[in-house]
Amino acid sequence: MIQQSLVRELRAICGSYGVLDDPDALLVYESDALTAYRHRPAAVVLPRTTRETRESVAAIARHGLPIVPRGAGTGLSGGAVALNDAIVVGTARMNRILGIDAPNRRAVLQPGVINAELSVAARRHGLYYAPDPSSQTTCTIGGNVAENSGGPHCLKYGVTSRYVTGLEVVLPDGEVIRIGGQGRDAPGYDLVGLFVGSEGCFGIATEIEVSLLPVPESVRTLLAIFDRIEDAGRAVSEIMSAGMLPAAMEIIDGATIRAVEDSVFAAGYPTDAEAALVIEFDGLEAGLKGDAERARRRCLATGAREVRTAQDEAERAALWKGRKKAFGAMGRIAPDLLVQDATVPRTALPSVLRGISRISARHDLVVANVFHAGDGNLHPNILFDRRDAEELERVERASKEIMRLCVDAGGTITGEHGVGLDKKHHMTLIYGPDELNAMWGIRRVFDPGETMNPGKVLPDETQPVAAAVPA
Amino acid sequence: MIQQSLVRELRAICGSYGVLDDPDALLVYESDALTAYRHRPAAVVLPRTTRETRESVAAIARHGLPIVPRGAGTGLSGGAVALNDAIVVGTARMNRILGIDAPNRRAVLQPGVINAELSVAARRHGLYYAPDPSSQTTCTIGGNVAENSGGPHCLKYGVTSRYVTGLEVVLPDGEVIRIGGQGRDAPGYDLVGLFVGSEGCFGIATEIEVSLLPVPESVRTLLAIFDRIEDAGRAVSEIMSAGMLPAAMEIIDGATIRAVEDSVFAAGYPTDAEAALVIEFDGLEAGLKGDAERARRRCLATGAREVRTAQDEAERAALWKGRKKAFGAMGRIAPDLLVQDATVPRTALPSVLRGISRISARHDLVVANVFHAGDGNLHPNILFDRRDAEELERVERASKEIMRLCVDAGGTITGEHGVGLDKKHHMTLIYGPDELNAMWGIRRVFDPGETMNPGKVLPDETQPVAAAVPA
Repeated sequence: MIQQSLVRELRAICGSYGVLDDPDALLVYESDALTAYRHRPAAVVLPRTTRETRESVAAIARHGLPIVPRGAGTGLSGGAVALNDAIVVGTARMNRILGIDAPNRRAVLQPGVINAELSVAARRHGLYYAPDPSSQTTCTIGGNVAENSGGPHCLKYGVTSRYVTGLEVVLPDGEVIRIGGQGRDAPGYDLVGLFVGSEGCFGIATEIEVSLLPVPESVRTLLAIFDRIEDAGRAVSEIMSAGMLPAAMEIIDGATIRAVEDSVFAAGYPTDAEAALVIEFDGLEAGLKGDAERARRRCLATGAREVRTAQDEAERAALWKGRKKAFGAMGRIAPDLLVQDATVPRTALPSVLRGISRISARHDLVVANVFHAGDGNLHPNILFDRRDAEELERVERASKEIMRLCVDAGGTITGEHGVGLDKKHHMTLIYGPDELNAMWGIRRVFDPGETMNPGKVLPDETQPVAAAVPA
Repeated sequence: MIQQSLVRELRAICGSYGVLDDPDALLVYESDALTAYRHRPAAVVLPRTTRETRESVAAIARHGLPIVPRGAGTGLSGGAVALNDAIVVGTARMNRILGIDAPNRRAVLQPGVINAELSVAARRHGLYYAPDPSSQTTCTIGGNVAENSGGPHCLKYGVTSRYVTGLEVVLPDGEVIRIGGQGRDAPGYDLVGLFVGSEGCFGIATEIEVSLLPVPESVRTLLAIFDRIEDAGRAVSEIMSAGMLPAAMEIIDGATIRAVEDSVFAAGYPTDAEAALVIEFDGLEAGLKGDAERARRRCLATGAREVRTAQDEAERAALWKGRKKAFGAMGRIAPDLLVQDATVPRTALPSVLRGISRISARHDLVVANVFHAGDGNLHPNILFDRRDAEELERVERASKEIMRLCVDAGGTITGEHGVGLDKKHHMTLIYGPDELNAMWGIRRVFDPGETMNPGKVLPDETQPVAAAVPA
């Protein structure tokens, strides 16, 4: 139980609506979008300013309690789960765009600004914010910074770290540092780059400077339908090898197509297909026609049975629909969904996809694949019912085997969802003790008392013994 | 003096040609390309492999001597200077391209590979390596990693950190870590991003994985001539504001034009002009014509007296000539050259350029500006004769004032040359004690004994006292 003296102190800082400690109100904060992990926080604090954040963090630190920073809670790795009766510090009320500097293509934001809203605000200047996670209508930039979020268009445009140029951060002891900002590269060691993707372990970003891009003049979208998913994988690999750089290349597999077409979101994809490949080019209108035609021919050459091309914005939305509604539609097949996230070299896609389908068959599970194919960033989603304990066990075994398959193919254990709680035990698949020691050392620079999002990212048992910690 | 026992030990590791301790041979290693700082190393070790690097570093560490890593020595911030009788570990003999994985657009290299040679090797696969520092025909990828190097085309393509995806690093104690590689984003904290730009303070990269880009289908180059440098600055700002993204935008000022035209490199720029602006677009041929025409019109609207367009590769080379030969030509004006490097917001370019010209007039100095205008990355070069002590003093005063001017305009103290020895005392212009403490803390994670490139990047007097160091 949280001490009432601390609650009073936090209310004095953040106002009476700024602190939640009622058990019902805390229910919402039990998990992020990976609902398999649930822990109720001791309280939730919702500061409105850097000062309120700094004072809240300092007050919590004085009481010796752990802190879990939280954006919109759309994360998929259990990163915002409050272990050990931690207090959640949420950024939802810090949701102002502080300024858009159009000539220098920059914006300064509070962390609680919703990803898509930044692009809406920038659009009147002919600009937009490039990283577009699937949750972009609800997720916040602060959460994107913590997770170094990607999205379909990150194939061409890169992930969050490419766009964050400056940060104001409240450290675990309540100190405030300002790093980067206003320049191409901040001098000295790259603290901004280090903070991006640090999953809430180093502090809470209270101000974020990002760079914006000009809205492309034009967009061309194709949908290729395949009878074999490996062929779709080959098309992706060949399009990239041919020197084209689409803005996005997304594969939706047969199981997903059928789930979507059975749902209210029916997108008109043929239900007997084994893969749909959405390809999008953007840029100057003059160049797009040629690109789209070359991609269309590659798809047909690798076995596409048909290729559709959007003629206008409505048709474009229709082609994307099957991709965008995929996760919603999967709810029809099974009550629970384990969203996996791994990256493999693009050329390994066909063999890894075959491997995943063998693993799911062996464990008698339905796996639906929806993924950022151009990046080799797979999302094999295992569908199941957690009330069936025996099935749950098969899910866990299959999930581990899929992860191992990706690593063995030269890939890695997460593409864009982060490590959080869910993947931390996979870290030893990738790193040895020396690499993990360096990570522990860096974490302790920012958080020597390990009070900021403890129990995440690094597996506890890899913690170096005191003597081995670099001073 | 170096102990002969250590020299013998190092020769046993790297072979007899792999260790230099003859004073004449060491002369070359006294400075990098910023020759104002000169310190002779105790010895130079040139390992050929990771094993030789690891064993050499461990042997030097056992003897308690400091180490300075060195690429080709083309750096401009004194970063490779051997203070305190350090031993230089050079990567010149680790110069093999270990593999190019064309379908996945990746290459794995030893650190001593020359920047331009990687692009030559990749070209047969239709690929190239994007960051192109001016020294690209001699500088090495290892040095680029240490300095997070830029170049003219980084306006569109970004600097080194965007392209480094994996590293093998020999740490100061001789341990080897492998971070990133083969994936879009390595899980956990971003050690690869942190190492890039760490200026040799964290260890020596012995293997580097980079991503490559497809060679653009076509290139279009323009040269605009202006009577006032502010107008050239305005053209740059307006081209970017209009949503265009040239591959490069470089300004050469009047003083530089006249130096070039007086030299054997005469490029045919009009000598009465006060600025030349080189603009280059690349991409699909279909889109380039429109871009070039829009940029031409913007230049004329902001006051260009003429705009030339290259019709073929020979004309393109001619337009670039004044830019590429600028530094060589400056040697005609004065024996010494202080190459400055600072970044300002693009929109501040006109006022900062006016300020630089006022500062140089007040100190009666010739300042020649050649710079990456699109990025707001200035290179005001002060021309002088170091034998004139009074002039040298004015140079130092002017240099400091220029730096302060850029910082006050919302800029930063280095765009791409790094902090090294030269800029470390400017770090306090940008950072307060909390930010510098974090940098010291991170440095100590990798190098607790401070033996790797000591005395660089962070000003010694900012070193946190023992009690304040995070454990």
